[in-house]
Amino acid sequence: MRVHETRLRVRYAETDQMGVAYYANYFIWMEVGRAEYCRDAGVCYRDLEIETGLYLAVAGAHCRYLAPAHYDEDVAIHTRIAHANRRIVEFGYEIRRDADLLATGSTRHIFLNLNMTPGSLPERFWAPFGIQAKGRT
Amino acid sequence: MRVHETRLRVRYAETDQMGVAYYANYFIWMEVGRAEYCRDAGVCYRDLEIETGLYLAVAGAHCRYLAPAHYDEDVAIHTRIAHANRRIVEFGYEIRRDADLLATGSTRHIFLNLNMTPGSLPERFWAPFGIQAKGRT
Amino acid sequence: MRVHETRLRVRYAETDQMGVAYYANYFIWMEVGRAEYCRDAGVCYRDLEIETGLYLAVAGAHCRYLAPAHYDEDVAIHTRIAHANRRIVEFGYEIRRDADLLATGSTRHIFLNLNMTPGSLPERFWAPFGIQAKGRT
Amino acid sequence: MRVHETRLRVRYAETDQMGVAYYANYFIWMEVGRAEYCRDAGVCYRDLEIETGLYLAVAGAHCRYLAPAHYDEDVAIHTRIAHANRRIVEFGYEIRRDADLLATGSTRHIFLNLNMTPGSLPERFWAPFGIQAKGRT
Repeated sequence: MRVHETRLRVRYAETDQMGVAYYANYFIWMEVGRAEYCRDAGVCYRDLEIETGLYLAVAGAHCRYLAPAHYDEDVAIHTRIAHANRRIVEFGYEIRRDADLLATGSTRHIFLNLNMTPGSLPERFWAPFGIQAKGRT
Repeated sequence: MRVHETRLRVRYAETDQMGVAYYANYFIWMEVGRAEYCRDAGVCYRDLEIETGLYLAVAGAHCRYLAPAHYDEDVAIHTRIAHANRRIVEFGYEIRRDADLLATGSTRHIFLNLNMTPGSLPERFWAPFGIQAKGRT
Repeated sequence: MRVHETRLRVRYAETDQMGVAYYANYFIWMEVGRAEYCRDAGVCYRDLEIETGLYLAVAGAHCRYLAPAHYDEDVAIHTRIAHANRRIVEFGYEIRRDADLLATGSTRHIFLNLNMTPGSLPERFWAPFGIQAKGRT
Repeated sequence: MRVHETRLRVRYAETDQMGVAYYANYFIWMEVGRAEYCRDAGVCYRDLEIETGLYLAVAGAHCRYLAPAHYDEDVAIHTRIAHANRRIVEFGYEIRRDADLLATGSTRHIFLNLNMTPGSLPERFWAPFGIQAKGRT
């Protein structure tokens, strides 16, 4: 199972008065993680939206917070695909600062058409998401 | 079990290019919901931080997205306490637009001292969080 | 000159580790202010986008910060139209907490078509923006 | 005059339903730009806060928007110090996408103590901000 690491620095805007990164921002970091995962797998998510007319809508999101992230810290987002088929993709995430695991999370997505009805990912995009071709399953 | 409703309008800032409210913002709306739940129960969360030196740090957060929210829509956050003791509080949320259930969610919190070690909620704040006094359990 | 007041509470998400509302959020509050100004003047900005295909794109934004806003404070946004014609609208803002002036600001907007070229506001929307009909100027 | 370039990718979270980066986010990008400017000049802003007890509070902010930024675009923030003394710092910014100038901006800051009164930057931090030593002016 492929794991992609992307790094980002905690922005001042992302801190709150507790002096740590505000919890909702971890979900934005997961977005950065999965966009970079896809790019690394050969799919630019922006192009996928344009070429297929499909949106990867979020159906569920979860985060478990283990240790706080602080301003200016260099944080690593480790992203993998936990499960995928042509209708659904689930990403798993680990958010780390050096050796410390700060958070784990997951997001579940469905492909939607422009009219917000469920869509099906064209076969040419299966490989980057780790979806196996039909005959092979 | 008490349920508190607070209402907010989806801001333009909260939309994304899919034309719907971006998923991380639901966690901000949950924050608004639990702050208003506490205020309605007689505890201003700001005062609680100041008076007790305790922070209600987020240990976990979850959201299930059922239908999208759009710009300028009037959204209701229904907040309740799912579980609470002097160390941990769990909130449950339903996000609604009129009769439509848009999302359900939950957040789990632990009381932390300023030095980020676990703390214990003073007894005078137990009632608003629905925590039963010792002898009664 | 009409001034519209809308109120909001500073969210925890909007604070930073300085313990005050992060400066970029004032521009979000201005967005809330001008949306409510328009609604109060009889134009729902959402409908304007849908009915005319025009977007009120931001061409410039300015804010002067006089005193900080804190978590949970009840802040008033006073919005007025400083200048408007069928191509351009300028809003002026005062952000207040009771008697205290926290910030002043302005935003300058141009009407854009869906293809991002300059557009012209249909005459039926002139009055809410305080634009005078042609023969009267 | 030194100009520092830092790069970032437009996040999905930063787009709005107009399909472009929401205007308030440019001020967050400016924050990233000035943090990296300072780091490149040998001052980590986080350390400055910790070591001096001074905060670089925003007193004013301005942005002029020339062309929109879109999701996933690689944007460059060019940051320079327009003016600085031991009480005030003004940063100037150009936000670019390749050869295209997307926006220009500025922010004006004052050094504040923890108690929110004006402070004075210690001399050992003058050089990174381009402040000349006393006898030399």
